[in-house]
Amino acid sequence: MNTIPSRSTFDLSLYLVLDPEMCGGVAGMARVTEAAINGGVSIVQLRALEWRKRAFWEAARALQPLCRARDVPFIINDHVDVALAIDADGVHVGQKDLPAKEARRLLGENKIIGVSVSNAQQWREAETGTADYIGVGPVWLTPTKPEAGPALGVDGLRSLIASMKSQGSTMRTLAIGGINVNNARSVMQTAGVDGIAVVSAICANGAPEEAARALCEVIES
Amino acid sequence: MNTIPSRSTFDLSLYLVLDPEMCGGVAGMARVTEAAINGGVSIVQLRALEWRKRAFWEAARALQPLCRARDVPFIINDHVDVALAIDADGVHVGQKDLPAKEARRLLGENKIIGVSVSNAQQWREAETGTADYIGVGPVWLTPTKPEAGPALGVDGLRSLIASMKSQGSTMRTLAIGGINVNNARSVMQTAGVDGIAVVSAICANGAPEEAARALCEVIES
Repeated sequence: MNTIPSRSTFDLSLYLVLDPEMCGGVAGMARVTEAAINGGVSIVQLRALEWRKRAFWEAARALQPLCRARDVPFIINDHVDVALAIDADGVHVGQKDLPAKEARRLLGENKIIGVSVSNAQQWREAETGTADYIGVGPVWLTPTKPEAGPALGVDGLRSLIASMKSQGSTMRTLAIGGINVNNARSVMQTAGVDGIAVVSAICANGAPEEAARALCEVIES
Repeated sequence: MNTIPSRSTFDLSLYLVLDPEMCGGVAGMARVTEAAINGGVSIVQLRALEWRKRAFWEAARALQPLCRARDVPFIINDHVDVALAIDADGVHVGQKDLPAKEARRLLGENKIIGVSVSNAQQWREAETGTADYIGVGPVWLTPTKPEAGPALGVDGLRSLIASMKSQGSTMRTLAIGGINVNNARSVMQTAGVDGIAVVSAICANGAPEEAARALCEVIES
């Protein structure tokens, strides 16, 4: 019954990061998740940096079935224990979270692991930690993640990816940070990006299904 | 070589909760841990509510060997994933963390699990979740855990424990919240308390070894 794509086959093209404040709590995240999947989101992450783990776990249990019903991978930000508890499809870890290597050891070989990276050194570490994709950014600065480092810009993104690919990296890449329907094209034209991640472009849009559909059209074009 | 006491034999009598701010970071926590164990602390918990998980994991890796060398159980607050990653002796979960039942499922049958409870319902849930001990409190209000509920006082502590024991509970209990060398005697005289937990009484004391020793003397008397 479970037809969630595997570590190597999942679709990274339009990656939704759910933000509980923007969506309006768990009920809001549920509405956004369903609408965004209808609109073409291919993978969903729950991120709630300010939430204690009980609330996070309860939200994850509510949202996971919505993704599973549509064969969309459901990824947990940061909390490997929550991912284990609910048998999520994977985790996404940043530089302030557990190292990817530890996450892999705890989650085993079948789960998706993503890592946020901003530079070549972090990219290499993610690769060593057997990450399945990396979120490269922030492309632009964004109020949703003030702790993220300085913006790479599209040029910085392009040059980092080109440099790593020229050194033999085959890592799948996701651009993240301030991406919306207006600037998504410039990001997608960056050689080597397999997808884009958005937060506010969908979560803070009153019409999340249409927002996702518009982003998909940019990605496919 | 590992002679850490088991789930049923560990000594709950003087339980140190390490606070990174009070101790002065990881180096300070290491100094306090060694001194406090010299002074008689029987079990140590790392709690750093404000810390992201990478820093928590690094601190835990630095502190665990100090406890292990002295056969003192080392307990992780909240983060079951960190406990799994470092093979800690157990976890302590509050009402806003993963439920004890989930923690037990993830950690297996050999690890120590403690739960913070303030009332009969939470006590019963902890027991169902196969907790090994409960931290009952706060006995007094404390600035180190402002989120804790209203203070039970010694009378509230005594009546909760008496009520639960009369209903057949055999749970081991730890009193927590504002306990220091001056009021520890009144807590220990409360029937059914197996130990006391302290934070500032040791972490914020310039002489943690002597502070622990003085608390031990109260507990033993």
